[in-house]
Amino acid sequence: MSARLIDGKRIALETRLAAGRAAAELLARTGIVPGLATVLVGEDPASAVYVGSKERACKELGIASFGFRLPASASQAELEAQVDALNARPDVHGILVQMPLPEHLDSDAIIDRIHPRKDVDGFNTLNVGLLAQRGRKPDFVACTPAGVMVLLEHTGLTIAGMDAVVLGRSNIVGLPMAMLLQRADATVTVCHSRTRHLADHLRRADLVVAAIGRPEYVRADMLKPGVVVVDVGINRVPDPTTNKGYRLVGDVDFAAAREVASWITPVPGGVGPMTIAMLMRQTVQAAERAARGS
Amino acid sequence: MSARLIDGKRIALETRLAAGRAAAELLARTGIVPGLATVLVGEDPASAVYVGSKERACKELGIASFGFRLPASASQAELEAQVDALNARPDVHGILVQMPLPEHLDSDAIIDRIHPRKDVDGFNTLNVGLLAQRGRKPDFVACTPAGVMVLLEHTGLTIAGMDAVVLGRSNIVGLPMAMLLQRADATVTVCHSRTRHLADHLRRADLVVAAIGRPEYVRADMLKPGVVVVDVGINRVPDPTTNKGYRLVGDVDFAAAREVASWITPVPGGVGPMTIAMLMRQTVQAAERAARGS
Repeated sequence: MSARLIDGKRIALETRLAAGRAAAELLARTGIVPGLATVLVGEDPASAVYVGSKERACKELGIASFGFRLPASASQAELEAQVDALNARPDVHGILVQMPLPEHLDSDAIIDRIHPRKDVDGFNTLNVGLLAQRGRKPDFVACTPAGVMVLLEHTGLTIAGMDAVVLGRSNIVGLPMAMLLQRADATVTVCHSRTRHLADHLRRADLVVAAIGRPEYVRADMLKPGVVVVDVGINRVPDPTTNKGYRLVGDVDFAAAREVASWITPVPGGVGPMTIAMLMRQTVQAAERAARGS
Repeated sequence: MSARLIDGKRIALETRLAAGRAAAELLARTGIVPGLATVLVGEDPASAVYVGSKERACKELGIASFGFRLPASASQAELEAQVDALNARPDVHGILVQMPLPEHLDSDAIIDRIHPRKDVDGFNTLNVGLLAQRGRKPDFVACTPAGVMVLLEHTGLTIAGMDAVVLGRSNIVGLPMAMLLQRADATVTVCHSRTRHLADHLRRADLVVAAIGRPEYVRADMLKPGVVVVDVGINRVPDPTTNKGYRLVGDVDFAAAREVASWITPVPGGVGPMTIAMLMRQTVQAAERAARGS
């Protein structure tokens, strides 16, 4: 059997276009242009690339993008003042502070200073707490796991009742992923570096979400035939046959796993493109809520 | 094999006495008496009994207890005003609003109105969000699962690496229990009414925490030999041979499970007594933090 591919590139494009349409509709109806403020501290090249991608995505979709650059030497108070100013601006509906911050800054305090209604990255403790409770609803959810849920919706599969294994327990992927799957009535196990019988857990799973950042760590013999595999990993491995000298692989051995799985996300072109698409969606949602005054 | 009993009655008593000593020490050092405000809305007899037990526990330990009674007809605004007043009182270090509230009241809004530093029940969304994130620390944790962690400490077992199954996903037990076990580096699976292969999950578990409120639901044949069993359930089953006409049983078939498990909590006298003990501990901690100004 060869698995069906979950085409993240296409689904992300659709998600982006839908966000663009929603932005246009909001503008026509209320005169409001959704606005995303991006805050970049320091000169980290990778962070600059990420922020640039987000700003470009905004422009393509009719979302206003407000870029703020602070020097690596910025103080906690300066960054907090920046966040406070953005919290207060009515034309800014979403605030994104690019992580990681320079080490002398308290990232947690900055993330929690963003108003929960502008926390389009979904990392705010209040939104995490709402996600973690039954019967509550966060304003926003971390974009990558939220994107995985959209990918899963596109398969048409029923998540309820599935045995799901989330590999990895980061605050930005693994833990919110587990909460989202649990809210969808899956039976969720979170595996991590201290897990003893990892292969056994994986082998009984109907759905595996891998997010540990270890190239091709999940092998086909750890998977149950027919499993749904979502690969959040994006790892560079040396490859002298390519121009760049490396290629991108996921946390799953894709070539082998696709022979076992029923559905699988490729890397690249699977989960990766969903993150920014969900950021765009959530920014437009933030503006819609602000327009409703809710 | 007959399992060793985890003696919740004794451990709860020790926990209470330690809270009492800490309260006495705080008083001697700072002149501060820890204070717990209890708010009861309406006339529900079970709720009145619970609140009464908490108030008595305070008195035994040198914790000031401030009882507030509102009629079942109290409005949301009245209850919120009550909470606001208690948030502002420096002699009140912990606030407990007894659940459930009458149906016309918004419990979530009330719980989240309690200042996180006075949220000794640990139900506040901000504290849940801090519990749910790696590298963060809540001010307080829901008392029952926090009590289970104390019981587990007393066994001397290493939780890290254990395969733990939490049966039930309530906001007051199952979900915070899963988070606490995960923070202790267990591999945690949360099972619930939509779980398909429940017996399989239970049979592979090194640790089972049952919190579904179904009398003797977990049978011995669902357990792995040597498993640690924590039974949070307290269910009344009819028993004409007793004076009261009923007896209390847990979610686990205790008589049979104790022949399979290595450690087990009895019902009653296991988890039950820990809840109030942890509430006392957290109230004293709240006062200690207030004294430190932290």
